[in-house]
Amino acid sequence: MRPVALLTDFGHADHYVGVLHAVIEREAPGAVRIDLGHGLPAGDIWNASFQLRCAWPHLPTDCVVIAVVDPGVGTGRRAVAVTVGTRLLVAPDNGIASAVFEASASVVLDWRRMGLDQPSKTFHGRDLFAPAAARLACGADPRDLGEEIEINTLVACPLPDPVITGTTIDGVILHVDGFGNLVTNVRGEEVEGSATATWRAGRRSRRVATYGEAQPDEVVLIEGSAGYLELAVNCGSAAEATALERGDAVLFSRNLE
Amino acid sequence: MRPVALLTDFGHADHYVGVLHAVIEREAPGAVRIDLGHGLPAGDIWNASFQLRCAWPHLPTDCVVIAVVDPGVGTGRRAVAVTVGTRLLVAPDNGIASAVFEASASVVLDWRRMGLDQPSKTFHGRDLFAPAAARLACGADPRDLGEEIEINTLVACPLPDPVITGTTIDGVILHVDGFGNLVTNVRGEEVEGSATATWRAGRRSRRVATYGEAQPDEVVLIEGSAGYLELAVNCGSAAEATALERGDAVLFSRNLE
Amino acid sequence: MRPVALLTDFGHADHYVGVLHAVIEREAPGAVRIDLGHGLPAGDIWNASFQLRCAWPHLPTDCVVIAVVDPGVGTGRRAVAVTVGTRLLVAPDNGIASAVFEASASVVLDWRRMGLDQPSKTFHGRDLFAPAAARLACGADPRDLGEEIEINTLVACPLPDPVITGTTIDGVILHVDGFGNLVTNVRGEEVEGSATATWRAGRRSRRVATYGEAQPDEVVLIEGSAGYLELAVNCGSAAEATALERGDAVLFSRNLE
Repeated sequence: MRPVALLTDFGHADHYVGVLHAVIEREAPGAVRIDLGHGLPAGDIWNASFQLRCAWPHLPTDCVVIAVVDPGVGTGRRAVAVTVGTRLLVAPDNGIASAVFEASASVVLDWRRMGLDQPSKTFHGRDLFAPAAARLACGADPRDLGEEIEINTLVACPLPDPVITGTTIDGVILHVDGFGNLVTNVRGEEVEGSATATWRAGRRSRRVATYGEAQPDEVVLIEGSAGYLELAVNCGSAAEATALERGDAVLFSRNLE
Repeated sequence: MRPVALLTDFGHADHYVGVLHAVIEREAPGAVRIDLGHGLPAGDIWNASFQLRCAWPHLPTDCVVIAVVDPGVGTGRRAVAVTVGTRLLVAPDNGIASAVFEASASVVLDWRRMGLDQPSKTFHGRDLFAPAAARLACGADPRDLGEEIEINTLVACPLPDPVITGTTIDGVILHVDGFGNLVTNVRGEEVEGSATATWRAGRRSRRVATYGEAQPDEVVLIEGSAGYLELAVNCGSAAEATALERGDAVLFSRNLE
Repeated sequence: MRPVALLTDFGHADHYVGVLHAVIEREAPGAVRIDLGHGLPAGDIWNASFQLRCAWPHLPTDCVVIAVVDPGVGTGRRAVAVTVGTRLLVAPDNGIASAVFEASASVVLDWRRMGLDQPSKTFHGRDLFAPAAARLACGADPRDLGEEIEINTLVACPLPDPVITGTTIDGVILHVDGFGNLVTNVRGEEVEGSATATWRAGRRSRRVATYGEAQPDEVVLIEGSAGYLELAVNCGSAAEATALERGDAVLFSRNLE
């Protein structure tokens, strides 16, 4: 049986995540379940897409992933199961899936074909995505779940690319993590080791290799665990220290030699 | 082996939930465990009861449920295992169980009969409920855990019913969920599709079928995933937008024709 | 296969905890995983050490524990696997392990010996600790993971002992739990049943056995579930009621007879 990984913005104040787990266990008894995270910013498809991209390479190779950040639940937006190499992704077709580049096939989930009750208008995680993932975990072919569609019709929600101009790179903060680290869209290999980041007029950060090299309360530039450069304060919060937020600009200087 | 589902107000800042899991794994190795939620409002039996009712129909049919919101821990309040159809519920006898209507039998948990050490005065989740659930997961008969009691002696904590008067229904907010949706005690089928909700003098919400139909920042009325009507803001928080709280009144108008 | 328990300060806003789970499942398919808690104060080794000590006795006897609160990640601090009776602890060598007294052996984790890619500078949980735990779960000998070291070279981070002077005990708040209970370093058996705690000039709390004995809003002294005395408010938060924090002093009076 395939393991099932779950990523949502459902939070922890409710039974919502628990019901996803319950439905999977009910429909695929004994399936391994992995919580990839449920504290994502509510309704933020961009953030979900970024987190999915960061986690993706580390998942079991036969994993079925449910990613539900779904402000369009109940409207005409499609629900899809996407084949990506040996893994499968079940999600609303709202751009989350576009974080995963190598999609080779996709179907539109069809509750009638799956023999399900008509889904509610407000909780497709429970009524559609979890039952679909359970079937896939048990070995179903995605084409048993609905009609195939062209993968180039999947909704795109591309993360912004950095803008490179000579010795400078215009970046943007993609994500504020739980430690208050400010993760940008600029990858470590794009900037020289001695480069700096300017994040507000007169405020500049030097690059370090480890959090431990930072002075107390110093805002430093560091390559984070997914390869993106981030502003960080060791044993502190760069978000609090800088008052920067998701979407704010960070300017990187490169040493061209 | 039966799966075990866990619902508590223990939160995520501590090892408390983890220790429940550890005890269950120690006493019932390999048992499937499902987190139904641990971020419930502390000590709020009414809320726990509501969430349990919403999740209940979706649980595996042979599930053992531990529900621990237990401000009376260590006092004379009873600890019980309740049989509900093919499922079992282990909880303090403080009204949580009254969300589950079809109870057919109950025992009072007896640590001596279970061969346990005397429980602490402050953590029966760890010392009594988790070991009891582990035994039930392994196939024990509830009567192995303690004396049978009359189910009509279980403490009741009924959720308030809406008050229907002609074309109006007086409802109340039962729960503020993690998205800031304000869930009332009025069920969708009790109100016509074109009805409105008045939640403060001069403030009224129209009913929609999906979150996506709401205008930006509009507070709308929608039937939530458990069948109850809720006030919601798409990609926003109705709790923030309205400053309403659990227990506040919402007045519904029905179109009688 | 041994079960794996996880304790971190990674929080719930990100994929970080999920990736630990994914790596363990990928490297040790089907291994039982137990979340001991991920909401610990960021970078607070002292707190992690305390929580580990409280949870330790309740873990399965063959458990492999990953404890990652690691502000020194990527620096010269060692990563270790420590044998403690029949259990194993994988952690940075920064004092977390010193909560566990009966260590009998330890190795320094060596990514080359384990055949791993060179770890990142910022996420050893994913790149080193989780793969190491997975190998141990599958039955590896700790000496397969790296060189043995003397256990007396492990970094110590001792929790402060209470200071006993005649009829008074100077204690300190070790931990503020999710309910707002203020957990001190003084154990229940060190103080007579009729003792009191003075936590600010003119503010004193009586000792009770159960939360339910407290008057509404009363700050009481109670022996918590791990044996330490704590200040508590039933159905409320002692942290809010007193404005006390981790590290603040509490003075206990003993009745010597």
